[in-house]
Amino acid sequence: MDAREAVEGALATRGHIDQVYWVGCGGSLIDLMPADYMLHAESGTVESRAYTAREFTVAPPRKLGEHSLVVALSHSGKTPEVLDACHLAVERGAYVFTLTSEEGSPIDDPAWGTFVYVWDDKTPQAELSAGQALLVAAELMRSQEGYEGYGAVRDGLASLDTIIPAARKKVNEELCGRFSQLCKEHDFLYVLGSGATFSQTYGFAICSLMEMQWQNCCYIHSAEYFHGPFECTEPGVFYFLQMSSGPSRIEDERALAFIRQHTDTYLVLDAREYGMDAVDESVRGYLEPLMMYYMNVELRAARGRVFDHDPSYRRYMGKVEY
Amino acid sequence: MDAREAVEGALATRGHIDQVYWVGCGGSLIDLMPADYMLHAESGTVESRAYTAREFTVAPPRKLGEHSLVVALSHSGKTPEVLDACHLAVERGAYVFTLTSEEGSPIDDPAWGTFVYVWDDKTPQAELSAGQALLVAAELMRSQEGYEGYGAVRDGLASLDTIIPAARKKVNEELCGRFSQLCKEHDFLYVLGSGATFSQTYGFAICSLMEMQWQNCCYIHSAEYFHGPFECTEPGVFYFLQMSSGPSRIEDERALAFIRQHTDTYLVLDAREYGMDAVDESVRGYLEPLMMYYMNVELRAARGRVFDHDPSYRRYMGKVEY
Repeated sequence: MDAREAVEGALATRGHIDQVYWVGCGGSLIDLMPADYMLHAESGTVESRAYTAREFTVAPPRKLGEHSLVVALSHSGKTPEVLDACHLAVERGAYVFTLTSEEGSPIDDPAWGTFVYVWDDKTPQAELSAGQALLVAAELMRSQEGYEGYGAVRDGLASLDTIIPAARKKVNEELCGRFSQLCKEHDFLYVLGSGATFSQTYGFAICSLMEMQWQNCCYIHSAEYFHGPFECTEPGVFYFLQMSSGPSRIEDERALAFIRQHTDTYLVLDAREYGMDAVDESVRGYLEPLMMYYMNVELRAARGRVFDHDPSYRRYMGKVEY
Repeated sequence: MDAREAVEGALATRGHIDQVYWVGCGGSLIDLMPADYMLHAESGTVESRAYTAREFTVAPPRKLGEHSLVVALSHSGKTPEVLDACHLAVERGAYVFTLTSEEGSPIDDPAWGTFVYVWDDKTPQAELSAGQALLVAAELMRSQEGYEGYGAVRDGLASLDTIIPAARKKVNEELCGRFSQLCKEHDFLYVLGSGATFSQTYGFAICSLMEMQWQNCCYIHSAEYFHGPFECTEPGVFYFLQMSSGPSRIEDERALAFIRQHTDTYLVLDAREYGMDAVDESVRGYLEPLMMYYMNVELRAARGRVFDHDPSYRRYMGKVEY
C-alpha cells in the first residue's frame, strides 16, 4: 500500500479524516516531521502532530479515533514503542498506515496497510519514507479539500532525484573537509536551522553526530537562538548553520549575521546553493529536509574518515539491553 | 482580562473555538508549552500548537481565522516577533489574548485583551504566565466540551504555592552544590526530561544555562535518548535528568537505568520527591513544569555563585544590535 492508496483507504472507510498523527522514534520520527510541518501549515481541514512514539502511548490525544489517520514509521520494522502506538491506534479505531524498510517485519502487519521502501541510493525520493509521508499529506489535502501545491510536491520530489546527487558531490568538494577539521579542533558544536529543515538540524545532532560519531553537540532553532542560546557565542565556539531556501530563510539570515560578527568559527550550508532553487517556491521549504538529510550523511561520513569512526558502528544500539 | 474572561470573550464572539495557537519566544514560549501539551492531550474539540513566534508569521497555519484563539506571551511586552504574530492573528480575524509582565508595554494593547502578571515570588502560580496559560486551556475545555480535570487543575495550581517554596529549599540543600561542582569539572552536559516537563528541560538548557551562564549543553527528550543520543554516554559525560512524576515517568526511569549503568557522572531531580505527589495524578504531569522552573532558577543561581557569573548579566541580549 502506498501513500495514495492509504489516503484512498482512509477516506473510503472513514468518510473524512480530521487528524493525522505521525509517530516514530529518532531518525524515523525525523523523516515524518516535514510532512507534519507541511500539513499543519497548508491544511484547512486536518489537524497534524508528530510524536516520539512513547509520548503517543503515554499521553494519547483524546481525539484519537475513527477519523484519525496514524502514520507510523519504523525503519527496522520492530521498534517496540512504534508497534505499541500502532496497536493503540487500532484499538481506538484509527486508520493506520505504516512505513518500513523491512518487508515481513512486525510493523509490516496485515492489521493495517504498509509501504515497504528499498533503502538505497537508487530509490526515487517519492518512494522513500520522507517522500511517502509528504505524499500522504499532499494526497489527503488534494482529496479532501483541494490542494494547489499538489503538483508542485510531486514535481519537487522528482527534482530531488537530480538535485541530491549533485548536492552530495558539492558538499564533499566544498564543506566536508572544513567540517571535519573544525570537529578536530573543537569538542562541541551548535547546529542551527529553521522551518521544516529544523527536523534535519535535530537529525544531524542526534543521529549523525551523537549516535554515529559520539560527537557532543546541540541543535538550536535559528529563531530561538536570539532568545537565549546566542549568549554562548564567542570566538572559538563552533556553529554549523543549515540555511534554508524556504520562507524561514529570514530566520537563518538573522542568525548568520550575528554569528559572523560574534564568533570566528562557523560553517554555512546554504540550501539555495545546493539546488533547492529549482523546486517551486510554494513547497521548497517542505522538501528541503529530504536534500539536507544527504548533506548530513556526507558530512558524518567525512568526519568518520578523519576520526577513523565508521558511522555504521554502534556500541549500544541493538547490542546491549536497554 | 484574565484567562476566564479571555475564554468567555472568545466564546461569546466566536461561538466556538477550534484552534488554540500558543505564541512566544524562548522563556515565554516555554511558559506556554505545558498548556499546549495539556490541551492537545485532553481536548476532544480543540486543536493546539505552540510556536516560536517567527515561525508563526513565516508559515502561519491556513486554519488561522475567526475560530482561532491566539495566546501570545511576551514577558518584556515588546518582543517584535510576538507583536508581529498578534497583528497577523488580528488580520486573520482570530481572538487574541496576550500575557506580559509589563503594563503599558506594546503588547498591552487595546486591540486585544491582556493579562499583566506581577513577576515576583509572592504572586500565586495561578496568576503568573504559565498558570494563566493552563487556565486558558482548562477554562476553554470546561466551557466548550466539559472537562473533568478542571477542579484538579485549579487545586493543583493552588498547591504549587506551597510545594514550590519547600522544593526550592530542598534543591538547595540536596542538589545545588553537587550540580555546581559537576559544572566545574565538565565543560558540557546533557539535560534530559519528558512529557510536559520537557519544556523545562529545553528551558534549563537554553535560558538557565546557555543564556544566563554561557554554559554549553544540550537538551534531550528521555524517550528519544535511546534512538541516537545514548551512544554518547560513557564515564565522564555529564547527564542531568529531570525525572517526571507524571505518566511520562516510565521514559525517564528507562533513561535513568541506562545512565546509571553507562556513566559515572549524573544527577537526578525527581519531581516526586519534590512535592508533586501532592497534586492530583490526572493533571500532575501538566503542572509539574511550573515547579521544575524554580528548580532551574535555584540550580543556575548556585552555579552562578560558584562561577561568579550573575544569572542576570547579559552580554548581547538587549545590549547589542541583532
